[in-house]
Amino acid sequence: MNTEYIGLGLAWASGIIALLYSATIAKKILSLSSGTLEMQRIAQAIQEGAQAYLKRQFLTISFVGVILAVMLYGSLGSHVSLGFILGAILSGVSGYAGMSVSVRANVRTTEAARSGLAQGLAVAFQAGAITGFLVVGLGLLGVVSIFTFLTIMEGTERFLLETLIAFGFGASLISIFSRVAGGIFTKGADVGADLVGKIEQGIPEDDPRNPAVIADNVGDNVGDCAGMSADIFETYVVTLVAALQIAFLTVNTSRELMIYPMVVSGVCMLGCILGTFSVRLGKKKNVMNALYKGLGTSIVLSIVGLVYVTWMFFGFDQILYDKVTGLSLVLSGTVGMVSTAILVWITEFYTSTSHRPVQQIARASVTGAATNVICGLAVSMEACFFPAVVVCSGILCAYTCAGLFGIALAGSSMLALGGIIIAIDAYGPVTDNAGGIAEMAGLPPEVREVTDALDAVGNTTKAVTKGYAIGSAALASLILFSAYTQELKHFFPNLSIDFSLNNPFLMTGLFLGGAVPYVFSSMSMKAVGKAGAAIVVEVRRQFSEIRGIMDGSQTPEYGKAVDILTKFSLKAMILPSLLPVVLPLGVYSVIASGFGQIQAFSALGGVLMGTMITGLFLAISMTSGGGAWDNAKKYIEAGHFGGKGSSAHQAAVVGDTVGDPYKDTAGPALNPFIKIVNLVALMLLAFL
Amino acid sequence: MNTEYIGLGLAWASGIIALLYSATIAKKILSLSSGTLEMQRIAQAIQEGAQAYLKRQFLTISFVGVILAVMLYGSLGSHVSLGFILGAILSGVSGYAGMSVSVRANVRTTEAARSGLAQGLAVAFQAGAITGFLVVGLGLLGVVSIFTFLTIMEGTERFLLETLIAFGFGASLISIFSRVAGGIFTKGADVGADLVGKIEQGIPEDDPRNPAVIADNVGDNVGDCAGMSADIFETYVVTLVAALQIAFLTVNTSRELMIYPMVVSGVCMLGCILGTFSVRLGKKKNVMNALYKGLGTSIVLSIVGLVYVTWMFFGFDQILYDKVTGLSLVLSGTVGMVSTAILVWITEFYTSTSHRPVQQIARASVTGAATNVICGLAVSMEACFFPAVVVCSGILCAYTCAGLFGIALAGSSMLALGGIIIAIDAYGPVTDNAGGIAEMAGLPPEVREVTDALDAVGNTTKAVTKGYAIGSAALASLILFSAYTQELKHFFPNLSIDFSLNNPFLMTGLFLGGAVPYVFSSMSMKAVGKAGAAIVVEVRRQFSEIRGIMDGSQTPEYGKAVDILTKFSLKAMILPSLLPVVLPLGVYSVIASGFGQIQAFSALGGVLMGTMITGLFLAISMTSGGGAWDNAKKYIEAGHFGGKGSSAHQAAVVGDTVGDPYKDTAGPALNPFIKIVNLVALMLLAFL
Repeated sequence: MNTEYIGLGLAWASGIIALLYSATIAKKILSLSSGTLEMQRIAQAIQEGAQAYLKRQFLTISFVGVILAVMLYGSLGSHVSLGFILGAILSGVSGYAGMSVSVRANVRTTEAARSGLAQGLAVAFQAGAITGFLVVGLGLLGVVSIFTFLTIMEGTERFLLETLIAFGFGASLISIFSRVAGGIFTKGADVGADLVGKIEQGIPEDDPRNPAVIADNVGDNVGDCAGMSADIFETYVVTLVAALQIAFLTVNTSRELMIYPMVVSGVCMLGCILGTFSVRLGKKKNVMNALYKGLGTSIVLSIVGLVYVTWMFFGFDQILYDKVTGLSLVLSGTVGMVSTAILVWITEFYTSTSHRPVQQIARASVTGAATNVICGLAVSMEACFFPAVVVCSGILCAYTCAGLFGIALAGSSMLALGGIIIAIDAYGPVTDNAGGIAEMAGLPPEVREVTDALDAVGNTTKAVTKGYAIGSAALASLILFSAYTQELKHFFPNLSIDFSLNNPFLMTGLFLGGAVPYVFSSMSMKAVGKAGAAIVVEVRRQFSEIRGIMDGSQTPEYGKAVDILTKFSLKAMILPSLLPVVLPLGVYSVIASGFGQIQAFSALGGVLMGTMITGLFLAISMTSGGGAWDNAKKYIEAGHFGGKGSSAHQAAVVGDTVGDPYKDTAGPALNPFIKIVNLVALMLLAFL
Repeated sequence: MNTEYIGLGLAWASGIIALLYSATIAKKILSLSSGTLEMQRIAQAIQEGAQAYLKRQFLTISFVGVILAVMLYGSLGSHVSLGFILGAILSGVSGYAGMSVSVRANVRTTEAARSGLAQGLAVAFQAGAITGFLVVGLGLLGVVSIFTFLTIMEGTERFLLETLIAFGFGASLISIFSRVAGGIFTKGADVGADLVGKIEQGIPEDDPRNPAVIADNVGDNVGDCAGMSADIFETYVVTLVAALQIAFLTVNTSRELMIYPMVVSGVCMLGCILGTFSVRLGKKKNVMNALYKGLGTSIVLSIVGLVYVTWMFFGFDQILYDKVTGLSLVLSGTVGMVSTAILVWITEFYTSTSHRPVQQIARASVTGAATNVICGLAVSMEACFFPAVVVCSGILCAYTCAGLFGIALAGSSMLALGGIIIAIDAYGPVTDNAGGIAEMAGLPPEVREVTDALDAVGNTTKAVTKGYAIGSAALASLILFSAYTQELKHFFPNLSIDFSLNNPFLMTGLFLGGAVPYVFSSMSMKAVGKAGAAIVVEVRRQFSEIRGIMDGSQTPEYGKAVDILTKFSLKAMILPSLLPVVLPLGVYSVIASGFGQIQAFSALGGVLMGTMITGLFLAISMTSGGGAWDNAKKYIEAGHFGGKGSSAHQAAVVGDTVGDPYKDTAGPALNPFIKIVNLVALMLLAFL
């Protein structure tokens, strides 16, 4: 009992420290100068657009959320409903906070960039760290507080797990809504602004004469910041909950093993906080290396922390269950963190300008847009292989060390690095915005050069986070799938359900489940296409009706584009976001009514696995491919194959635009998608 | 015993009738006029190029084939080696014959098109029918002759099945080589010819001034005809073998059930031969409807035949095994044929110009190449859903009727329609070539209009066949997977192998197996890109060095482009084609050496299923998406959204080019890919 208290205390403390750390840097960043009046005016416009959008997004989501909360209350009880609400609120707060920081840090980064690269990097990265540690801090505290509260109330473990699953479900639901809607907004703006601005009117990116330019910058914040924060919050929480659940379902010897993943998350969080201090520009002024130094240090410190708390909790030799000792647990956790490092490296290989794949796409642009797209698609497919190998090796190693709980632990250790990973990612949109502000405020080109240098690695870091999120999603949903089979045994001890692959019902589920990520991606990509087209029409209208835009004598109506996108993306997000909720319920009811419950449970199992397999590959190929296309354009802009304005550059712009909905709308939204399907299946069991 | 003889006799007779029918029309077609001297000269060039290519292709393949045959001889005995050789040879013959017919029928179609649409349709369709019934006739006779021969030799059933599996493997291997190499050739030529000819020089398609124009027409024959024929031959044979195998492994009451699928195939073949006579242009001159009339009649007659032979063999009431009667078998078979009809209808919906998806892509072209590609990708993803639903419903219905054997029967009934389906498909490249010849020979525009009208539905029919092939592949590989699990029980009765989804080794297999179709597609798409780039360089060289090309005073060196493509595609086909052979062997040996044989068998099972799931969806999305892109271009060319030469048309050309390697290289080659993985796994078991 004593270790339990210490463990919970440690987890509480780590969560609180993360929030305090986040608040401290936030105060520091906000006290920085926000530049000239012009800069402030532009930043203000972006800020207002983003806030207005997010308010309406939350209003729409809460409408759906309230209906679901009432349904959960009616079917599964108040604890599930409350857990769901808490998860949804915290996920919303994470997103909102991420966005709020970002819209304030952007202009301060521009200002800092006037003093140099190191200064710009410091502000942008610290802004990312605010979001990062807020998200993981809230995630950990959410789980720990439910755990503590229900322990005090003397709730059963099952009661606790149901609440936690609902908590995860709430987080996932907000996450998929934010990802889809934010993704449609940001890419609709991007596609629309580029098509008319760059291609038709021939004005540069972020030119203040483009009526969609503010919408584009708003998009970076609501998509890449708010969406991403909600996404990682969800991933963090669900992975942790899955680990707790598997500890209870398969091991179930003591509560210590349930508390242990929270403690590991806490101590790694502290390691990552320390790791942020090693992000410093070296002599070679390589921004990516500076960020990697931070990640590397965080991983090393986290492993040290993992070893220490495991030793403190269990020692290394004592057998905890089966043949698993403390040392086995340490190894499983290490597997997760090492996998993270390898996944990061692979994604970097496929998406950074210094390696073969991006350069190949750039070379293919010389013969036109078609060969650029063909090559990009080929790279996006190729990019699936090695991550799959890493995930598989991770699964096998962790399983060999400590069974299913080992896999769960590997997953939660991966996510325990979330703080620093988000910091590295959220840094991207901040610098992207900073560049936009520099351009619009007419600052000298040196400033834009600094922000461009910072932004260049942003595409890679964004792809890296997505690869990491989807890699961890594979582990989390594997755990949730095991939980599904365990729960079936618990709730229906008399049914013998056949999960073997030659059961035709399971096959049916596999095929149907496999098809739905495609439908989902198709829907969200089409929405981006339509949003982009709507923006094209609006921008063309403004250019033709407001005659003074091109010579700068009249200001475009920025708000109109923001408005159109807000309405469109909120309308378009509903249907795809509800797909993962409806799918398992639908398949279960159809098969159950036609062939009986046993077959329906098999089919549902197939659905979970099918969704996971095709979802995983689609997500990896989309996020890597999109990043590679984007950087192929940047590589050409850096002067290769004819440089800016060449026909190769024009071809690369097409590829970049194709990659936009791939990497920022459909791809990352598949991460919560996969998990929602699993969580809904688990709740369905509890209901039945 | 009596029924057995009658059944075998019927199957023999049907196969021979199909070959005779094919020979009769061939004689008729060859006796037709082949037009002006100029037309004959062009046709001759295409013919020579195609023959030279195919000779070299077979030389290369026989090199690999001989090595494999020797290895099979050493490891599994002479019967396996001979079966493999027979399968490979017949598959090669099918491909060669298909190509030979097509290169002779093209010019005769041009000549017939001078008299009108109905005449052109008749020649092109009959040319397709020659190939169609030759392929299915050879397929059925191959299986039946092995069966008869080994029955006379009094070989055991196991001996028989091993030979048949090897026969299927031989067919599949030739098929994947032909599909990959032919696909790279045809699309390399197409992409290269379009990029320089249409875009850089602004000359129309099939213009004789384009140095790659003969290569492009050769490509249609070696890719769409030879490749497709080998592909369907493989699908036909493997599905039939799988049905025989499942009859033996799961039912095993009498040989009658093993003979039954062959009889059904035979009688349906006769139904399809009769069906070809109903292909006639109606009053509305709708080419697609004429073809569908033929397909519809064939399906109805085949069902009648199915009912009759089942009644003759088993009656309707007698219980054959479990609760299955003759009637249940009739229903399972009907499920297969009805599924074919629905799959055809769905593919038509996604790829024909008269429906929403293609028109959507055309509309998206107005805002540029990027939105065209985004919309095309979205459509390609959407196109996966309903085929998956049809396959799943088919599986469940057939299984409910007659268990696993019901699924096998549904699959072989689907394929039993192969004759008419190939006829409808092979018609496409013939008309494509006919149009090319009309253009190059400078025939009056009316002729080109007729061939264009014929060719317009060619894109849809090509997509339809591919959808059909891949749909049946899902059923076939499901059967092969069951065979794998049954064989494991047979060969290793003491091992209890866990095929349930929460086994981490199976999961590992699933992920790895799922990743490999992506790698395969990536390789083949890149090869197309490279081949296209090589052609671009060559065509540019000829335009700059041979000054008289553009004014028509000098003839381009057509042979050079054919030569470059031949060499390149034969080199590029080896590695991807061997992937499905190496994958199962590799995964098995790695896992077996690290974790033991039981785990390796689970992992191998996962590989089979993973390959099937992602392979299925990739193939459907690629073939449908590619067809839709192609027809979106045609829709614009028909005068919508600005028509030919508009900016929408240019954007649509980019989409079409992107779709080329999708629909003609990577997508269709996944069909043999999936099956080779399964067949290799089965042979691995026999070896172990």
